[in-house]
Formats: sequence, C-alpha cells, structure tokens
Amino acid sequence: MANCIIAQSGGPTSVINSSVVGLLQANKDLKTFDKVYGGLNGIEGVLNGSLIELSSLNDDQIQSFRYTPSSGLGSCRYKMKKLEDSTEEYDRLLEILKFHNIKAFFYVGGNDSMDTTAKLGRYAKENGIDIKFIGIPKTIDNDLMFTDHTPGFGSAAKFIATSTLETYLDSSVYINNGIFILETMGRDTGWLAASACLAKIDGKQVADFIYLPEVAFDAIKFLNDVREKFKKQNKVFIVVSEGIRNKDGKFVTEAKDEVHDKFGHAQLGGVGSYLKHLIIDAGITKRVKSLELGVLQRCSIHCASDTDLTEAFDAGYAALKFAIEGNSGYMVAIKRDSNSPYSTSHFLIEADKVANNVKYFPIEWINHDGNNIKEEALNYFTPLVNGLPNLIFENTMPKFKTFNK
Amino acid sequence: MANCIIAQSGGPTSVINSSVVGLLQANKDLKTFDKVYGGLNGIEGVLNGSLIELSSLNDDQIQSFRYTPSSGLGSCRYKMKKLEDSTEEYDRLLEILKFHNIKAFFYVGGNDSMDTTAKLGRYAKENGIDIKFIGIPKTIDNDLMFTDHTPGFGSAAKFIATSTLETYLDSSVYINNGIFILETMGRDTGWLAASACLAKIDGKQVADFIYLPEVAFDAIKFLNDVREKFKKQNKVFIVVSEGIRNKDGKFVTEAKDEVHDKFGHAQLGGVGSYLKHLIIDAGITKRVKSLELGVLQRCSIHCASDTDLTEAFDAGYAALKFAIEGNSGYMVAIKRDSNSPYSTSHFLIEADKVANNVKYFPIEWINHDGNNIKEEALNYFTPLVNGLPNLIFENTMPKFKTFNK
Repeated sequence: MANCIIAQSGGPTSVINSSVVGLLQANKDLKTFDKVYGGLNGIEGVLNGSLIELSSLNDDQIQSFRYTPSSGLGSCRYKMKKLEDSTEEYDRLLEILKFHNIKAFFYVGGNDSMDTTAKLGRYAKENGIDIKFIGIPKTIDNDLMFTDHTPGFGSAAKFIATSTLETYLDSSVYINNGIFILETMGRDTGWLAASACLAKIDGKQVADFIYLPEVAFDAIKFLNDVREKFKKQNKVFIVVSEGIRNKDGKFVTEAKDEVHDKFGHAQLGGVGSYLKHLIIDAGITKRVKSLELGVLQRCSIHCASDTDLTEAFDAGYAALKFAIEGNSGYMVAIKRDSNSPYSTSHFLIEADKVANNVKYFPIEWINHDGNNIKEEALNYFTPLVNGLPNLIFENTMPKFKTFNK
Repeated sequence: MANCIIAQSGGPTSVINSSVVGLLQANKDLKTFDKVYGGLNGIEGVLNGSLIELSSLNDDQIQSFRYTPSSGLGSCRYKMKKLEDSTEEYDRLLEILKFHNIKAFFYVGGNDSMDTTAKLGRYAKENGIDIKFIGIPKTIDNDLMFTDHTPGFGSAAKFIATSTLETYLDSSVYINNGIFILETMGRDTGWLAASACLAKIDGKQVADFIYLPEVAFDAIKFLNDVREKFKKQNKVFIVVSEGIRNKDGKFVTEAKDEVHDKFGHAQLGGVGSYLKHLIIDAGITKRVKSLELGVLQRCSIHCASDTDLTEAFDAGYAALKFAIEGNSGYMVAIKRDSNSPYSTSHFLIEADKVANNVKYFPIEWINHDGNNIKEEALNYFTPLVNGLPNLIFENTMPKFKTFNK
C-alpha cells in the first residue's frame, strides 16, 4: 500500500494544524494510504529528509495538535529554483518521495506554496511520475484568488475585531481621552484591517476610521479627518493596515525602514507609530497611543473562530479526497453557497493561477472617503468569525502539542 | 430609605465591572439601599455631579455589563488635595452625597483610590457625617499589600501566559529561528511578567528568561545568558517587565524616554525594543522580534479567568455587607484559605495601610540567577487563571455594555 505526506509552509495561522488533522481523519475514514507522513519545516525539511509518521499518533496527541496554533510541523520560506534554471532540487525531492513510496504530497500554505505545488505537479507529470500534488489554502491575509476566503483568516479577523472592541473600551474611560491607533497586519491587502468593522457597541461601529492598502493614503486628508473627529468627540479610534501606501504606491513607512525579505516583500511595521507622530506633530493632541497587534493576530487560538477551525479541518479532508480522484497541481478552494444559513462547498483551482496572485479587498466595500468600510462588507465577514473553539486545558492552561523540535 | 454609590478609578481591568454587578446583586439580595448610584469617571465625575442610577437597570443590561471589560462607569486619575491643604473638595463631595441621601460610597481601584477612600472616611468621621467609605481592590498589577491578590490580576496573568504560549509557538516554526521578546506591563513589580511561568508545553516552561523589576538588570549578564542560550538552542524566548531597572534603581529605558504622569510615575514602554537593540548591537543575531502586549493585558476579557471574574463579583458583594456592618475607611481584602481545593474568604484592612504601598514579587520565588521564576510560584498562580468566562454574544461578536458616554 502507498503512503502520503503533508507539510506546512509560510507564515503560521491559528488553525493550520486543523488542516493536517482533517487530512488524517479523511485517511482514517477512507483507508486510502498506509502511512501519512508529516514533512517537517515544509519543503526545506522534506529536502533534508525530515519526515515523521503522523498516522501512528494516538487520539490524545491528535486532539491537542488540532487545537494548537502555529505550524506544528514547522515551516519554511524556502523558494525552489525555477525549473528552467535547475531541476536538481525537484529530482531530489521526487527521489525522497519515491523512496518512502509516497503517492500524494499535500502542501498547506499561501500563494508562494501554491507556486511550489504547481511546479512540482507539472514536473512530476512531465516526467511520468505518479505522485499527486495538492495545495491546501492557509493565510491570515485572505489574499488568495478564487477561494471565497482562506482558512486562518476568520480567526485572525475574530481576534482583530475582538481586540478592536476591547481596546476601544480601554481607551475611552476618562473624561479627556486621546486618540488610539490599532495596527494590523496586511502587507498588500486590507482584509485584516477591514475586519475591525465587525466591532460594534449598541449597534454602532467603534472604529472612526479604517485605513487599507487599497486606498492611497493622503496625510493631509488624514489629519483633517482626525482633527475634525477629535474636536467633535474628544476621542478618535483608528485602525490601520501595516501596508498603507501613498499615491505613488510606496509604503508610507518605507522611507524610514526599508528591509526586504527573501521573497522581495518589504518587511513592514511601525505604521501606527508613524501616524501617531503625524498627529502629534500636527498639534491635534499629545494623547496618542498606538498598538501593534503583531503576531498575536496569527497565533491567538484562544480567540479563534470555530467556523474557521472547522473549515481548515474540512479543507484538509477534501484535499485527500481530491487526490484520490486523481487530481494534481490544484489547490482546494472554498465556495460560499449560502450566507444564511451559512454553507460552503469545495472545488479545485489550478495552483499556478493562485500562485503569485493577490485578491484585494473590494473597492465597492470601501466608503466614498476611503477611510472606512461599508455595511455591505458585514455579510461577508460575520459568518467567518462565528463560534468559540473547545480548547483542551491541562492544569488551568491550554494544552498544546507540536512536532517541530 | 437611604442610597449608596459606587465608582471606578485608575487603570481599567477586564473584570472591574463585575465588582459593580456583585454589589448590585448584594443590594438586591439584602434589600439595604433604595437606590444604587454609579458615579461616572470616579471621584472627578462625582464632584461634577455625574451620577446615574444603576439599580433600575434591567437584567439584560446588567449581564452584558458584567462581561464588559474596562471601566464601564468611566474612570479618572484625579488625586484629591491633601486634607491639610484644603477641605473644599471634601466638603463639596460630602454635600453631593448628602443631597442624594447616600450613606455608603464604594470605590473600586488601586492604591491611589485607597488613599482617597481613607481620606474621605477619616474626614467624614471627624465631622460626624454618617457615610461609610469602602474600597474594592482592582489592579492588574497585583501590587496591593495585605490582600492575597487583586481582582483583575488573574485575567491579565491568564492573557499573558496564554500569549506567551502562543507567541512561543509562532516564533519557533523555522529551522533557523531568532530571539523573541515579549514585554508585559508592571511598572514597579514583576507579578505580570512572572505569570509567564505558567506557560508550559509537555511540562516544560517555554520562557527561557523572565526579567522582573525586583532584580537589578545587568546588561552584561543578560547578553552572556542570551548568547549562550542562543548558541545551544538556536532560539531564545524572553519575557520582560516594562519596569526593569539597573542597579541604581533607574528604569533601563529612562535615559531615552523620561516622561512622568500626574502621580509622579514614570511612563514606560519600549523595554522590549531596548533589549532587541542590545542583542543586535552585541552581534548575537539580527533575527530579534519584540512585542509589547500593551493595554491588551488589561482589557482582553475574551481570555479572562473565570475565577477572577467571580472574585471581582464577590469582592463587590462583600463590600456592601461590610458597609452594612458599619465599617468605613477599609478595603475589602482576599485571604487564600486553601490552595487545593482553592478557596478564599474576605477580611477588611485599613485603606490607608494599602494606600501608596507596594507589594513586590517575592524574592524567594526568583531563581538564583535572577532571570527566571521558581516552580514554587506555580502554586500561587495556577488557581488564579482557572476557567473561561461565559461571554454574551450577539451576531457572532461579544456584546458589551457601557454607561460612560
């Protein structure tokens, strides 16, 4: 009997391990593969032969792993060479898979991982090697094309919206309050920052302004908006994406802090602090606080969306079924069939169509002034953040399990 | 029939409104006061006559309020003049209370609020005015003397320990990881940072180092410790209190950023970033991330401790009973009667003994090297972070209620 392997790549999410557990469950139910291996540290680890056997884990370990945030098999940001430049890595990887009698490779990741999935699928097919390559979507950024949303996003959105509510309350207790700036992730797209529109008290949205990368940032207009709102309310609550850009498409913080990661993405952060100093320098008020949610957005499983956890599990489950049907070089995508009651189904999309592509936040859901989100977006967001997870506790603290040493 | 009033002061916590709801419940059960007023924005608002009636709220409003973080009645950082300097404010406050036929004043706060409670209690007694003044403890810092712990601390500790676990997992996914620094609040004491010792995976504490204000910070030793650990593990996880000081008692960040608030406390922050640059400058690695938990520590009711919420409620309940018995000028304190099973009782302590005093983290719970917490401290922390709250949800998001406009 043949085996299969699953590995994780890119930035972690709170629910990424759920997809692994979903795949394990599918294999248990459908009795397809003899062994399910876990590749440690993504493609990078697999190339080094770092494999563990997941199918022999006991139920206790699997349940803890399912409710453990962050890539429990380890991750990588390893980009394989272009096929045209060298096939060495591809050959080595296929040799390792053949050695372990692996007939299906599942890769949980974002668009870079779908690029890898597509390339491997194509190379194997071209060389007549019968190994299926299937991508399982994962990113808090929600920026993958074709899929309605990505597993990982709902939990990040839930954490952001909840923290928006809580920090809004925290920043509004005095007679004279100041200005509070909450900075979210979202290098290229505004999905994460926009999810703050879910935060309402007594039916009213608490964020006065929400700034996304999809709208060119204009510092003069920003200061006018904030000054006017502060005069009226004596407090202002702002949510901003780390990725906001000026009209030339440059990150507003780029001049100050230009570092690039291996994939050529600029490493951002510090937009909140940048806006804070704009406000202070403009003389609006000195009482300005900014808070970066940072990695909490992608690992706070204690505030995960149960819907998201379930959908991550289901995507892993579906991936195995699609592989059995003989598909390769595809990503599992989610289709929203109905919003009320909320229901979804899966379909396949060519992994290379997803790779290196970006799904932006829809312009029609941004208000005319470009500084907030329209009510229409709520229908999209609301079902994604539903429900709380049943975490496993041990001695009053969450019990987590990870296989990455 | 007479009335009473409750007000909130100082920095918010996740569970401060629970104490108000506990007092309302006590008055419902014991039918003592005709009306329970809420003073908005603490003593500052009460002096301006900003009162609302709490006893006429419906059950729905009260239940939402109970599970709403941050001072729902508003807060202040108003320090009353010394009695020797001027009695004007005291006279005005007592006039307002008499006008509303108020016979008991409850103040939910930390040591500055206990100072106010003590002064008002003494002044009323000296002038033969029959109004009782009772303090209800509240501070995430856990630095009030005499009480075993303070309502608000358990929830902050739970959020810190949980975030320690989650960010540890997030920062450990690659083959080559870096150094992660988590910065907690705690200006004077290390209770909050120390609570990170609760974060364990497979029985092993995840924080390699925990730095508290109670131990003089030595940059040379710090760099040696971090360098050695990084060489051994290729990753280091550090938790640090914003209040760490050098051997002269100066905050390590003080030179860079010296601002003082109205009470003469230095406004801190940025210690994580300071340590990050120490490590980079020392050439240990460039892969260093620091994250400030900031106000999330004191408002994340979604990760509150149910024990803490209950104890905040019980402290409010007990305050009313103590007032009925004729006490004034005291704070309600918590005694830990047993650790297993965990049980507590209440007693009264003179508010002026608590005021302007600080309870430090016990030196005997800090390891010999001064860079971590001993196992003995776990018995103290563990029961305080137990259980999850039953938040009220509306349309997939928490439903919060606040009375501070």
